[in-house]
Amino acid sequence: MSTVGHLINGQIVNDKNRTQPIFNPSTGDSTRQVALASKATVEQAIAAAQAAYPAWRATPPIKRARIMFRFKELLEQNADHIAQLIGEEYGKIQHDALGELQRGIENVEYACGAPELLKGEHSANVGPGIDAWSEFQPLGVVAGITPFNFPAMVPLWMYPMAIVCGNCFILKPSERDPSSTLFIAQLLQQAGLPDGVMNVVNGDKEAVDTLLRDPRVQAVSFVGSTPIAEYIYTTASAHGKRCQALGGAKNHAIVMPDADMDNTVNQLLGAAFGSSGERCMALSVAVAVGDAAADALVAKMAEAMKALKVGAYNVPSNDFGPVITAQHRDKIVGYIDSAEKQGARIVVDGRNQVVNGHENGFFVGGTLIDRVTPEMTSYQEEIFGPVLQVVRVKTMQEAMDLINAHEYGNGTCIFTRDGEAARYFTDHIMVGMVGINVPLPVPVAYHSFGGWKRSLFGDLHAYGPDGVRFYTRRKAITQRWPSAGVREGAVFSMPTMK
Amino acid sequence: MSTVGHLINGQIVNDKNRTQPIFNPSTGDSTRQVALASKATVEQAIAAAQAAYPAWRATPPIKRARIMFRFKELLEQNADHIAQLIGEEYGKIQHDALGELQRGIENVEYACGAPELLKGEHSANVGPGIDAWSEFQPLGVVAGITPFNFPAMVPLWMYPMAIVCGNCFILKPSERDPSSTLFIAQLLQQAGLPDGVMNVVNGDKEAVDTLLRDPRVQAVSFVGSTPIAEYIYTTASAHGKRCQALGGAKNHAIVMPDADMDNTVNQLLGAAFGSSGERCMALSVAVAVGDAAADALVAKMAEAMKALKVGAYNVPSNDFGPVITAQHRDKIVGYIDSAEKQGARIVVDGRNQVVNGHENGFFVGGTLIDRVTPEMTSYQEEIFGPVLQVVRVKTMQEAMDLINAHEYGNGTCIFTRDGEAARYFTDHIMVGMVGINVPLPVPVAYHSFGGWKRSLFGDLHAYGPDGVRFYTRRKAITQRWPSAGVREGAVFSMPTMK
Amino acid sequence: MSTVGHLINGQIVNDKNRTQPIFNPSTGDSTRQVALASKATVEQAIAAAQAAYPAWRATPPIKRARIMFRFKELLEQNADHIAQLIGEEYGKIQHDALGELQRGIENVEYACGAPELLKGEHSANVGPGIDAWSEFQPLGVVAGITPFNFPAMVPLWMYPMAIVCGNCFILKPSERDPSSTLFIAQLLQQAGLPDGVMNVVNGDKEAVDTLLRDPRVQAVSFVGSTPIAEYIYTTASAHGKRCQALGGAKNHAIVMPDADMDNTVNQLLGAAFGSSGERCMALSVAVAVGDAAADALVAKMAEAMKALKVGAYNVPSNDFGPVITAQHRDKIVGYIDSAEKQGARIVVDGRNQVVNGHENGFFVGGTLIDRVTPEMTSYQEEIFGPVLQVVRVKTMQEAMDLINAHEYGNGTCIFTRDGEAARYFTDHIMVGMVGINVPLPVPVAYHSFGGWKRSLFGDLHAYGPDGVRFYTRRKAITQRWPSAGVREGAVFSMPTMK
Amino acid sequence: MSTVGHLINGQIVNDKNRTQPIFNPSTGDSTRQVALASKATVEQAIAAAQAAYPAWRATPPIKRARIMFRFKELLEQNADHIAQLIGEEYGKIQHDALGELQRGIENVEYACGAPELLKGEHSANVGPGIDAWSEFQPLGVVAGITPFNFPAMVPLWMYPMAIVCGNCFILKPSERDPSSTLFIAQLLQQAGLPDGVMNVVNGDKEAVDTLLRDPRVQAVSFVGSTPIAEYIYTTASAHGKRCQALGGAKNHAIVMPDADMDNTVNQLLGAAFGSSGERCMALSVAVAVGDAAADALVAKMAEAMKALKVGAYNVPSNDFGPVITAQHRDKIVGYIDSAEKQGARIVVDGRNQVVNGHENGFFVGGTLIDRVTPEMTSYQEEIFGPVLQVVRVKTMQEAMDLINAHEYGNGTCIFTRDGEAARYFTDHIMVGMVGINVPLPVPVAYHSFGGWKRSLFGDLHAYGPDGVRFYTRRKAITQRWPSAGVREGAVFSMPTMK
Repeated sequence: MSTVGHLINGQIVNDKNRTQPIFNPSTGDSTRQVALASKATVEQAIAAAQAAYPAWRATPPIKRARIMFRFKELLEQNADHIAQLIGEEYGKIQHDALGELQRGIENVEYACGAPELLKGEHSANVGPGIDAWSEFQPLGVVAGITPFNFPAMVPLWMYPMAIVCGNCFILKPSERDPSSTLFIAQLLQQAGLPDGVMNVVNGDKEAVDTLLRDPRVQAVSFVGSTPIAEYIYTTASAHGKRCQALGGAKNHAIVMPDADMDNTVNQLLGAAFGSSGERCMALSVAVAVGDAAADALVAKMAEAMKALKVGAYNVPSNDFGPVITAQHRDKIVGYIDSAEKQGARIVVDGRNQVVNGHENGFFVGGTLIDRVTPEMTSYQEEIFGPVLQVVRVKTMQEAMDLINAHEYGNGTCIFTRDGEAARYFTDHIMVGMVGINVPLPVPVAYHSFGGWKRSLFGDLHAYGPDGVRFYTRRKAITQRWPSAGVREGAVFSMPTMK
Repeated sequence: MSTVGHLINGQIVNDKNRTQPIFNPSTGDSTRQVALASKATVEQAIAAAQAAYPAWRATPPIKRARIMFRFKELLEQNADHIAQLIGEEYGKIQHDALGELQRGIENVEYACGAPELLKGEHSANVGPGIDAWSEFQPLGVVAGITPFNFPAMVPLWMYPMAIVCGNCFILKPSERDPSSTLFIAQLLQQAGLPDGVMNVVNGDKEAVDTLLRDPRVQAVSFVGSTPIAEYIYTTASAHGKRCQALGGAKNHAIVMPDADMDNTVNQLLGAAFGSSGERCMALSVAVAVGDAAADALVAKMAEAMKALKVGAYNVPSNDFGPVITAQHRDKIVGYIDSAEKQGARIVVDGRNQVVNGHENGFFVGGTLIDRVTPEMTSYQEEIFGPVLQVVRVKTMQEAMDLINAHEYGNGTCIFTRDGEAARYFTDHIMVGMVGINVPLPVPVAYHSFGGWKRSLFGDLHAYGPDGVRFYTRRKAITQRWPSAGVREGAVFSMPTMK
Repeated sequence: MSTVGHLINGQIVNDKNRTQPIFNPSTGDSTRQVALASKATVEQAIAAAQAAYPAWRATPPIKRARIMFRFKELLEQNADHIAQLIGEEYGKIQHDALGELQRGIENVEYACGAPELLKGEHSANVGPGIDAWSEFQPLGVVAGITPFNFPAMVPLWMYPMAIVCGNCFILKPSERDPSSTLFIAQLLQQAGLPDGVMNVVNGDKEAVDTLLRDPRVQAVSFVGSTPIAEYIYTTASAHGKRCQALGGAKNHAIVMPDADMDNTVNQLLGAAFGSSGERCMALSVAVAVGDAAADALVAKMAEAMKALKVGAYNVPSNDFGPVITAQHRDKIVGYIDSAEKQGARIVVDGRNQVVNGHENGFFVGGTLIDRVTPEMTSYQEEIFGPVLQVVRVKTMQEAMDLINAHEYGNGTCIFTRDGEAARYFTDHIMVGMVGINVPLPVPVAYHSFGGWKRSLFGDLHAYGPDGVRFYTRRKAITQRWPSAGVREGAVFSMPTMK
Repeated sequence: MSTVGHLINGQIVNDKNRTQPIFNPSTGDSTRQVALASKATVEQAIAAAQAAYPAWRATPPIKRARIMFRFKELLEQNADHIAQLIGEEYGKIQHDALGELQRGIENVEYACGAPELLKGEHSANVGPGIDAWSEFQPLGVVAGITPFNFPAMVPLWMYPMAIVCGNCFILKPSERDPSSTLFIAQLLQQAGLPDGVMNVVNGDKEAVDTLLRDPRVQAVSFVGSTPIAEYIYTTASAHGKRCQALGGAKNHAIVMPDADMDNTVNQLLGAAFGSSGERCMALSVAVAVGDAAADALVAKMAEAMKALKVGAYNVPSNDFGPVITAQHRDKIVGYIDSAEKQGARIVVDGRNQVVNGHENGFFVGGTLIDRVTPEMTSYQEEIFGPVLQVVRVKTMQEAMDLINAHEYGNGTCIFTRDGEAARYFTDHIMVGMVGINVPLPVPVAYHSFGGWKRSLFGDLHAYGPDGVRFYTRRKAITQRWPSAGVREGAVFSMPTMK
């Protein structure tokens, strides 16, 4: 059984005292294991990053950016292999894995613009003969801790920007599906990055806590669940680090009576069930305004769901694959059970999904639940599975009140034709990412990603312009040159007069 | 004895169960007292702010800004009275109090530009027919906690920007000199601010902790000492709030051998002793490169210090006044004692400063200490008094290493004529605010104020562009309009043809 | 009869060899005359501006901005008097004159943000040890030539920004209603502007041509009709000057079948007839999509127009006043005649408007013309009077094709509820200023004003961010400091060791 | 003899009725000819561009940018071949041709950031419920006319940015060395650009005038000599086009007495003689402050020039090659003659440069002339050859007055160590591109290139941020949605209540 190791100072390092199996969720088998880094191994990575920092910091941004140009090429050339690795360890269908990778590449493309993005502000003559300007300088060694559900994309939200800003990076990816992440990091080495600038340590809490506590680490980016995000943020902050920690979500779509229902159903299908609903931007609650809209929505959705294909990652025609672990499958099923018990109506039931030839895979079928109410457990908590719940309300304001009352505020969407409804929603909804007829309003790479309320801890959102600010710190310079220098000196200026 | 109360929902409120005397540091007398807000009083202010928020948030930024235009006028018209109040309770000489106020007004001027500063980013056609934009929306109720040494300026760093961004504000100023702060807040009411948008609660730890823990407060700005800043940041963060907490400093100036020494001494005089050195940007350590520079610096500085005038706030010709309390005076004297014991040379001794007619005032004279070394207590800690220490080094690199090794990184300065020295210093010094021949490099209001290392906890600096980001949160919108609407509808377009 | 003179170098100057009467369009009487500047007088103004330039350019932007803060106060304090002057010479009703002034004040408010607006871009480390930045420096002496219809607002689009950027200004306002313009310029003097920075010369073509040809004038801003704009642009360009010349318009509103017709009529009423239609943003053509919409629009508009009150400027309840001259009144009437002859239907006829007690005033009543077609003279040319023409089309695309085919492209609007229609319109219409249910989409002061096609000659729009760019030029600096300077010098660093 | 044709609508087109020979300046031979486009051929290109425009405009910026990513790769892969083509037709030594290409690639890299660069400004709530934003939309068909001396770089200043902004482009390169330019354009096709978006027409005045007059061409960028630039600007402006026309230069370096003379000489060597001085940024005048500096400069420069190697393009160790034509060689020699006659001292004389084996090549050797004065013809006009002239002055102010009095204001530089001298120079020099110890201060690709005075006609500089503005126009949108839409509608919201 092969072991996935670490990337430290440009070398693959194995740290075999502790390992953990990696599963193929489509089959339930395990054929690889991952090394779990000890504190010493993580410190070795930190030391490598620290050593690489002075030279990397002094490298002009345009030269740093050119490595990202080459990295983009390599990612595109190796896309199929990356998708294969994601599929093997996480079960994502190829088209979806390629889509994830493409979103990640867009962050690399954005990082290529570093010289523009790092521009500071210059003010001439703030006082007589006095100039002032601000520079955005790198932080030093920074770390990222990333989740299993986007092993390619989420790391690419972080380190291309961090590195192009002049920082050195240590990535702790999910230990469940580390191979694609590691492979991608090696491509960055291949693109010409100096050793030590980018490091990957696989591991668990020991690795995480080392990163959170080591004084050489200046900043931590995290994406995962809200309880862990809160722990990461509090711990990192208490250790004097800059931190942004992105947590859970419960994303609602409001379906207005004037929505084009066929389009709405079509959009929701992908947004609710794509990647088995294991996305922090998955659309898991549809709030229908008026029973007429609700009835139409449920009927059309149930019909459309008949065509959904669930199965192994390597069958391209499948719509979505297994969930990450057997435990997680059981948890999802438990939420469906609870909804049923608490009075909701299971319109389409994915609890007993069987995939022929993959009977041990961790599958849950697409599930549609109607007449869900805010008191139900399945409404209050993040399910992170292929389950779409329908809540019925009488007015748009009631729908918005529901969303604003939820503890999460990651993404949301409204389906309507009406400009006024869209504008009111956009203005007043307490959610960080808003879609107008766009069910997965993940901001493009040149805007920034971030939820509100308990979906994000920290001031600055991920990637895009906020990413630049997160991975740099402001230095303000004020400059006055004293008079009576060489310009005004008399000695040289009139030598022939004496 | 009059009592300074609170400003809640547009009304002065007195909360008399607990009070504390306010001293006139120039005389040592107390003629006023300040009400210390109970938890209930603070909650009353929070409730008022919360109630005022929806209408204020919906007020167009340009209308919010126009109140700041009027506020600026009122501040200018009332400058002398404000300076008088500062002098009475803190001892700052009038010219210095007016200077502080002017710096504060500059932040109001900056806030007048809100419509420009709040612009979001708009991207047309991020995909076919899809647009995306980011808005910067207010946070809600936010709080500020400010120190005694700038009772006018530091609050004005915070609330004009917070309010113009659409937030409602609760200010907890220093309980030692609250009168000018409260008076200024009343001018803002007079400028037309709706009741409840701006509130002032005087108080102590009870008030602070209420603000830090109440879930309705979304963000906290703090300026004070590093231990308190760290407490504020950790507590506010743990309660889910955005926080920026500015702490202590130990600001060094490097004096290069090519510096114009007369100019250098003249600049250092104000930067070291102005406001009795009770400034987080006070220049408290001069690092002379080479003994020749050191000898010249010490000799000329000692000579120049003979002309320094110390005394009561209301004598305009005085250079600086008393320190804030008798206890603080004793603490400063203790630092001078320790330096002497640890081997430094007291060149000018301000320990037994007597001001005729003000024998009970809290005075310390300007003090110059030579041959200070990094091991000395007086070097390691922030003195916050009129004490300039000289450290002698052999090279510029040694000087920079000293600065970079210090736990604080607020401000610093280099005196030189040489472009290369200045540029190297600017690039490599680990300090947030850098002066080139500018000893107090406080950024102008349209840049941002912030130290590095343990001088600031948080991502975003104070006031200026970072202030805008601190007091707003990003909302990213992605929009697509479905086809088959009124534009393409055939029904209406040819009604007369059928 | 009093004479309106010039403001040169801080003094009112009279240049009496040539004068021209000023009329009160509400009565047809003339009680004042205006001096028409000779070439020599204009050159005197240019010389004054040139002399004032070096000191003004060296004044820090924040100090320049503070004069604009005071200017805003003075404008607000003198609003009624300004409105009175506008009314006397141009006939604008007070509420409209105050509205115009308010829009002008908003440009002054924007100019108060000069320190932020003038920030350049700074790039550290563009190469090893090399920094680069761009500054936006003033041009020198610049000129503005402005029309009669906004004697307060249009000049305020120009000179506050020009001046705050560090330029000196010469304004040539309309000779028909110069008094309010001159009075406002005097208020700027009163606000503390140094003599010579702002100058006003009244005059005609002689003055204009002097400004266009004098090599000391670096840039010219113009607002007026298209033929003159083209002349100004070509002449100024040929004389090496930067120029922006805003010309005529024919602004269309598309009325979609789903538009709220009551709201639409209400909006169009002000947009078509306000200020007698003598606005370059007046909405003069309504394009109704479908006959049902057209019929409803015409019927409701005709009804609403019954309440329009036309009369003298000093009756506050009037909706609009006279047009600027008797000749212009006759020209407008001629356009209505031609439409009638060419087959359009005059629904409401304002040709014989009589205002009791003001029988000699230059009045035209609100006029509504239906079934106008693109071939008609009244459609092709700018009428600049209180005339709304209705064109009937079958589809939205046909409406857009009409607009895109017109030689002008200043402003336009669509009335609809449908998000898709609005977005398609915004994206594809060839017009510089677009309203969605906003009939007069004059950009706010912090965006920029400008038409497309033959409505504007030049690259940069007026006021707002483009105004800053127009009144400054970019200077790009690249800086490297050679090594072996004082930082690395050994001589001084160890003098005592040898 | 092969013929270089045009690239129209993705195809190479030959238009053989008129041709002109292309020379190899290193040998004086001609082995190729270039087709000179007729008016009809140019109109064919315009039509192709016009036809390609709607689809290209609608392509999302990120997709347009991705073609530039691929273009960069292809340029890098084909660098040697491009350098070979440049060498054959223009004589540039390979290292210099590769340097030129690299600078061009940097503009392609910048264009890759299009989605960031095209962001507009968004303002929520400019009034109650009213939003406003500005978009930067493409112009349509735009043209570029480029000079012989940078056949790779200058076109790359223009069309990558124009195209990525959504425009279609027609390039008219120099007819003296068109092959590298055409080859590069073909690489862009190969990168995936749709046919018709990029077109190249070779030609002379007939082609130029067609582009300047055709109403379908919206904008023209030009780089060349000042008389032609002025013609282009005036003609294009008179035909309603946006235009930026970059002309000639006379770039001065001030050598201060404190300059490091060895470094200065080393820098000037490349800046004066590189590419035979045929660069608009060539440093052609050294102004020495004080005779001591002048004497040292002249002596060291004369010594250093002994090592200069002049010869054919294909000998890599050569420093520079021939000039473009025999006529131009004679013109340069004529300038040296005139300086000699007018009293200057020819220190190093390159007039009779012979290159063995290339006796018919168009060579001029490096020439140094001392004691040049402002009255001399060689000082007043642009020589555009490998000639460095030294002017001696007594003070820095005198040096600056000289520069400010010259009709050109393209680039300039100061050599000094002194921060104050550099800052004063930067602030007050009337030149668009300024170097501090950087003799060729060509702005990096993310700043913008442009001279002042008669070195540039137009408002906006070339490439960088100004390039984005030049190739787009601002559209300002103001939006309000009427109430009483689906959000507030009662019909659907309480269907169960009836």
